[in-house]
Amino acid sequence: MTELTQMSLTEAAEAVRTGKVTATGLVEACLARIEHTDGSVGAFASVQADEALAEAARLDGGEATGPLHGVPVALKDLIFTRGTPTEANCAALRGFTPERDATVVSRLRGAGAVIIGKTNTHELAYGVSCPASRNPWNPQRMTGGSSGGSAASLAARQVFGALGTDTGGSVRIPSSYCGTTGIKTTRGAVPRDGVHLISWTYDTVGPMARTAADCGALLDVLAGFSRQDPYSSKTPLGAAGAPAGLVLGVPDEGFFEGFETDPEVRAAMDEAVDVLGSVVAEVRTVRVPNTGEHFDAGAAIVFAESAALLEELRSSSNELIGEEPRAIMDSGAEIPGTALAAAQARRVSFERACLDVFEDQSVDLIVAPVTPNQVLDHGAVELGGIPLIPATTQFTFPVNAAGLPAIALPGGFAADGMPIGFQIVARPFADRTLAAVGEAFQKRTDHHAQTPRL
Amino acid sequence: MTELTQMSLTEAAEAVRTGKVTATGLVEACLARIEHTDGSVGAFASVQADEALAEAARLDGGEATGPLHGVPVALKDLIFTRGTPTEANCAALRGFTPERDATVVSRLRGAGAVIIGKTNTHELAYGVSCPASRNPWNPQRMTGGSSGGSAASLAARQVFGALGTDTGGSVRIPSSYCGTTGIKTTRGAVPRDGVHLISWTYDTVGPMARTAADCGALLDVLAGFSRQDPYSSKTPLGAAGAPAGLVLGVPDEGFFEGFETDPEVRAAMDEAVDVLGSVVAEVRTVRVPNTGEHFDAGAAIVFAESAALLEELRSSSNELIGEEPRAIMDSGAEIPGTALAAAQARRVSFERACLDVFEDQSVDLIVAPVTPNQVLDHGAVELGGIPLIPATTQFTFPVNAAGLPAIALPGGFAADGMPIGFQIVARPFADRTLAAVGEAFQKRTDHHAQTPRL
Repeated sequence: MTELTQMSLTEAAEAVRTGKVTATGLVEACLARIEHTDGSVGAFASVQADEALAEAARLDGGEATGPLHGVPVALKDLIFTRGTPTEANCAALRGFTPERDATVVSRLRGAGAVIIGKTNTHELAYGVSCPASRNPWNPQRMTGGSSGGSAASLAARQVFGALGTDTGGSVRIPSSYCGTTGIKTTRGAVPRDGVHLISWTYDTVGPMARTAADCGALLDVLAGFSRQDPYSSKTPLGAAGAPAGLVLGVPDEGFFEGFETDPEVRAAMDEAVDVLGSVVAEVRTVRVPNTGEHFDAGAAIVFAESAALLEELRSSSNELIGEEPRAIMDSGAEIPGTALAAAQARRVSFERACLDVFEDQSVDLIVAPVTPNQVLDHGAVELGGIPLIPATTQFTFPVNAAGLPAIALPGGFAADGMPIGFQIVARPFADRTLAAVGEAFQKRTDHHAQTPRL
Repeated sequence: MTELTQMSLTEAAEAVRTGKVTATGLVEACLARIEHTDGSVGAFASVQADEALAEAARLDGGEATGPLHGVPVALKDLIFTRGTPTEANCAALRGFTPERDATVVSRLRGAGAVIIGKTNTHELAYGVSCPASRNPWNPQRMTGGSSGGSAASLAARQVFGALGTDTGGSVRIPSSYCGTTGIKTTRGAVPRDGVHLISWTYDTVGPMARTAADCGALLDVLAGFSRQDPYSSKTPLGAAGAPAGLVLGVPDEGFFEGFETDPEVRAAMDEAVDVLGSVVAEVRTVRVPNTGEHFDAGAAIVFAESAALLEELRSSSNELIGEEPRAIMDSGAEIPGTALAAAQARRVSFERACLDVFEDQSVDLIVAPVTPNQVLDHGAVELGGIPLIPATTQFTFPVNAAGLPAIALPGGFAADGMPIGFQIVARPFADRTLAAVGEAFQKRTDHHAQTPRL
């Protein structure tokens, strides 16, 4: 059983395709692993064991349906599944059972994936921890969030792939803390219909897995225009650029000014850059806008948009929404339209400044830490007196403001044995290039292959 | 003199190029015509006679600089000109003298155009009339607005081309009322830096002239990415599609429901469709979203954005802003951020529904009236008890919401001798196709060639 769940998603798909294992075998292995480990990890909000086994049996009895035929995956419990509760870890959504699948779920099912369960999230995805889950590398440490359950389930070898959402770091932060891989996709590249949104401007849905190649395989299934989502872009993802032809930019010191970055986090990024030097054509120092320029505008937009998106829920069940998201939405509801309009204009200017980095300085990729800090303790609500959202999203939130894709990759381990990730950011719609660069990096490193003891 | 000013912009450029006339000759002819007619028309807020003559002399003494070498043009007094007041007909901006040209002005100058003066606008471009100007066809009637001075100066044969801006109809409405031609450009296609904006989301800068070919020539100079404007798109305008290969959609009755369209306006559109039948490959009835779906969302966005954009002016000189824009901005300042956020989401859905018309019903062009009404009396502030903005922008404002290009073309004359325009809307970045279709239409009609007696 353990060996089966150690496979990557692409290996698992290949094993089904070549008859080495059945879909049922994979689902049983995953369910056993969940049974064995999820008491301590708490990755899942709900497991659909019977449905998954029935679907696996159906797939085993029929023709190959697609590239993920028979492969078990998990979904952040923010993403609608027909007939299965989708509660976003929020008491106000207890029992909420969608009548239809999100487009991304239909696409996964269409590709043959088996939905095995719904993973825990920070309540309403509004935070950077995920209190219901524990980090598989050490239960005293947090998974990060908001897609903490998805990252934890991957680290714990419970599933082969998962979906997360990322408004300001929610795919990348838990990927970094749990030693897994995830892509914050280009704005508009992956449809968001059938997802409990908190921000029209910042939210993205993205693939999470143990390898970059796996994320790329999921991306191929997930990405592309859907008329179900008015924000979905008709621009298709570009083909993967050959990593050996690319220029990697390393931000100069101005990028790091204004807050402290942990030395081990910085060292992990520097070591990753050394490795990437043998992957890309050139590594070059670049000037990048200091991310502090963006925070206030981004917060105003996300706070106000979340208050608008959840207005109905707030008016019907405000007392069932947790204190933290409620406080944020209360403050969002106070933001004047003029302030929101001005914040959007500042965001657009910031986005242009970010795009100009690629143009003016002739780089294809920009490397950065994921968080300035190492993995925090489970239950932490602040860092050096600063609330977690501003304290930990300095490097991630601005990427959403600019609509750019970014991949979070395991970059090594701290002295205390916890994973440290880093991210690579690219031009809009270069998501596949990021997967290819990540794959090349992971051929030269084995951080992603390390397994926590559970 | 009169004969010179009767030329189209492309004819005037050709005449300079071939030495039939000098830049100085054209500028003198225009100044004489302004002198002769502007007492009754009131198209100009200011005329830069000396500067224009000096520039013409410089151009006559040098090499040809570009496609508009020596051609006099006018600018809506909302568009920054270095060293020349740009007051937007607002007392609070009296004496405001920009230190730099707008990008569109630099581009016109770079192409050899001579800026002859600044044209009147509805105060701050916030309205659909232009009280300082009179309709050249009848001084008792309004020019329409907000770019009324630009349209009036063209109708009065005072200049060969002009710039306007269009937030909800401000290029098209005066073009329609004055019997001239104008293009509301695709969102992001023409840079807007150096323009007194009232809406980040809805404002566009566009060419105005007496013919569609002239608008196309101006478009070639104006369009294209500028890094001065963070909203400027990197997508270039497409090449002009051959009109004979296109499908024209005529909205079904659902589009006209909810308000009254004047029978003569409807008849002019129907006659235009008959002519267009010989221009395009096919004419087909289409279902188009009723524009009433959009108005409330659009008003919330423009009102709130204008309050934000003009916040500084309001706090320093509120008493110098006229009652009408002040009332609108006061109401905009009251709009909560949540309402603005929700309005933007509704606008995005509306935009998608509009784009889907082209996709689903396989049409390239959609025809519509410009306003539901005929040319109003000068000084009118309401129509059937409804304020002018909602009463007259039913067909124009939604085009801005969707970011689409549209050309306003003269479609004939009402029984009272006043012009009636119609518009053709196309997919994003098909602005050149609209100019080509307009040119083909104007080869088959002579409405655009009629000249008011002044």
